[in-house]
Amino acid sequence: MKNLKGKCVFAQSGGPTTVINASIAGGLIEALDNENVTGVLCAHHGIKGVLDEDFFDISFEDKAELEALKYTPASAFGSVRYKLKNPDENDSDYRRILEIFKKYDVRYFFYNGGNDSMDTCDKISKYMQKSGYDVNVIGIPKTIDNDLCGTDHCPGYGSAAKYIANSVMEINRDASIYPSPLVIVVEIMGRNAGWLTAASKLASINGFGADLIYLPETVFSYEKFLSDVKAVVDAKKYCVVAVSEGIRFANGKYVGEDQSSTDVFGHSQLGGVGNALKAQVKTLGIKCKAVELNILQRCAAHCASATDIEESFNAGRYAVIKATEGETDKMIGFKRKGGAKYEIEYVAEPLSSAANAEKKIPAEWITESGTDLTDDFVSYALPLISGEPERRLKNGLPEYAKLKYVKIKA
Amino acid sequence: MKNLKGKCVFAQSGGPTTVINASIAGGLIEALDNENVTGVLCAHHGIKGVLDEDFFDISFEDKAELEALKYTPASAFGSVRYKLKNPDENDSDYRRILEIFKKYDVRYFFYNGGNDSMDTCDKISKYMQKSGYDVNVIGIPKTIDNDLCGTDHCPGYGSAAKYIANSVMEINRDASIYPSPLVIVVEIMGRNAGWLTAASKLASINGFGADLIYLPETVFSYEKFLSDVKAVVDAKKYCVVAVSEGIRFANGKYVGEDQSSTDVFGHSQLGGVGNALKAQVKTLGIKCKAVELNILQRCAAHCASATDIEESFNAGRYAVIKATEGETDKMIGFKRKGGAKYEIEYVAEPLSSAANAEKKIPAEWITESGTDLTDDFVSYALPLISGEPERRLKNGLPEYAKLKYVKIKA
Repeated sequence: MKNLKGKCVFAQSGGPTTVINASIAGGLIEALDNENVTGVLCAHHGIKGVLDEDFFDISFEDKAELEALKYTPASAFGSVRYKLKNPDENDSDYRRILEIFKKYDVRYFFYNGGNDSMDTCDKISKYMQKSGYDVNVIGIPKTIDNDLCGTDHCPGYGSAAKYIANSVMEINRDASIYPSPLVIVVEIMGRNAGWLTAASKLASINGFGADLIYLPETVFSYEKFLSDVKAVVDAKKYCVVAVSEGIRFANGKYVGEDQSSTDVFGHSQLGGVGNALKAQVKTLGIKCKAVELNILQRCAAHCASATDIEESFNAGRYAVIKATEGETDKMIGFKRKGGAKYEIEYVAEPLSSAANAEKKIPAEWITESGTDLTDDFVSYALPLISGEPERRLKNGLPEYAKLKYVKIKA
Repeated sequence: MKNLKGKCVFAQSGGPTTVINASIAGGLIEALDNENVTGVLCAHHGIKGVLDEDFFDISFEDKAELEALKYTPASAFGSVRYKLKNPDENDSDYRRILEIFKKYDVRYFFYNGGNDSMDTCDKISKYMQKSGYDVNVIGIPKTIDNDLCGTDHCPGYGSAAKYIANSVMEINRDASIYPSPLVIVVEIMGRNAGWLTAASKLASINGFGADLIYLPETVFSYEKFLSDVKAVVDAKKYCVVAVSEGIRFANGKYVGEDQSSTDVFGHSQLGGVGNALKAQVKTLGIKCKAVELNILQRCAAHCASATDIEESFNAGRYAVIKATEGETDKMIGFKRKGGAKYEIEYVAEPLSSAANAEKKIPAEWITESGTDLTDDFVSYALPLISGEPERRLKNGLPEYAKLKYVKIKA
């Protein structure tokens, strides 16, 4: 626990979300106001901006515009998909980061991202400790996938879940109108954890949900799927299927694998599971549409959760508070308090507990049919989507943050 | 102009929209209160419900739930895609409708739909006139396509346009984050008229729109498209393309034709133009994603326009008012008043002027580049998306109308 004085650097990484800018806003506003912070920089394009010495000076920005970042989707300072090497094999990137930190007197480093980013953050933290350079490093989580360990839930999940729940309700109504049978398959993100797809369960609460929910946590088979679909269509004529892009057969192969490619982290990039299921439904002689929620589920700020925005903002704030109090090598997490009313506290968890582990839906929250979620899931997820944000509107459309983006001369 | 006394029948047809239920709500509430109306029926699944003698008795419904229809997407009483034959060739359907109208003493008939529905409505009206049976027939327009003649704009367009504008803004932000070039192609509905795709222009007003807009009104070529995209990517690294599913090459062939099939009206069902363009962009060596807004653009009640809801509700009301005043063979239209402030009046236009004609975007509203819209389009479309509706929420999610659906015994 070291109390340091110096500059701070924020960086955003991974896929953007509706609220990653809310976290950065919380961090920036807190840092600008903190007496231990002598300068506030944002790296352009995540860790790449650090390596390239490419920084924005936040002292030039208006506070009202930083506040407006709460309602501005995607990564305002750019993102990157760049994997730092294992420092034991090649430490050139780490040496460069240390050089930059020294040059700018960086004593606080905040990395805002998902699993891979927490891993990057952890590696940097460990390297700096080993080098004897004092810098407090804190990870600010974000991922719509909600699969980080060390936190009750992840900033970004509530807003994505809200968009998914609203969209599935609307798709349910749309599916219901014709006299002939119809199946609509809604393809939802989530490679290995089904949190996003499970959010379709929330659409059932007021009456218009998905009839069948297929998660990566359960083994998928076409045979059971077709039998499930047929039973629903026989009973009520139309059927809404919510399916994760990450469902797999018993042999471990992704159902959407035909269209797969691989990203720089070695993860399969999936797509097309909706169309694969559509082709199957057609073998039953039933009309089927496939709807892919696509990137809209991660950037639909017009349907954000006020709770998610507020918590994400506070995650950024607490990162700065904890770091300037002397914490390092931590990730900010949410801990749900007991009691009937939903409340959380902000905690600092070891980065290593979050990095590279994926939290899945507990088996006991999935019903025996394998196609539905229990009330425990609903109790968990429902508070996360609540509240309508007070967006800044102009001409009937959102007015996003207008930043000056003043670069520091290297 | 005949003042009649008797029952009224409402029917909904064609693809659903966010606000078609607002129109039916306006009509039902007005009719329940009208002294010339002796009973209020809704046909189940449009004209099919009339032919099958399948009606709901609306007198059993709570007024608050009928009001809640304003915020409930899709067609609450079902829809159908059934094309009435030309009565000169086969009048069996028309004779059946006449028989039902006589049996139930139907003196008012309201048909809520798009081009094809206005055609159906017109044919029924003409047949009843020829038969000497007194029934006042009024069409209530709805189509997100905004392509009906005889009205300034169509109920449903404003809400779809608002969803598209919001989504394109969000996609623009999402596209901007990575350091490497990226093109995102957003595929938007609209077979022959580009009104929906043009709504992506509204996303530019506050700064984050589509860079290139391809409408069915302009001839498409891959050569120009690739040159347009390259110029944008060279200038700003990322490029958002809004494209109508209905764009065609100079030879008249749809770009998305490979995946086409034909509906019962003989219209090609298009799809896949986004993927076709994505494949083209890849030949430039640039990463490209295709996002299809799909049915969400027609049912996204969570992003509806309050103006659209109110106008749609009033279109239903005026249909009843005009019919009970003695009008027949008409469609309710919106006439925009002159003056700086946006205002409309509700008019009754001959059904024949709306049936089967398609209104396209005026050539002078498309810029010389062929990929942008002028300020005249913005002035036209912007008022239509304004206003945030006061949806009924429960558990943080919409609570749609809960109807009793009491059937009349045939």
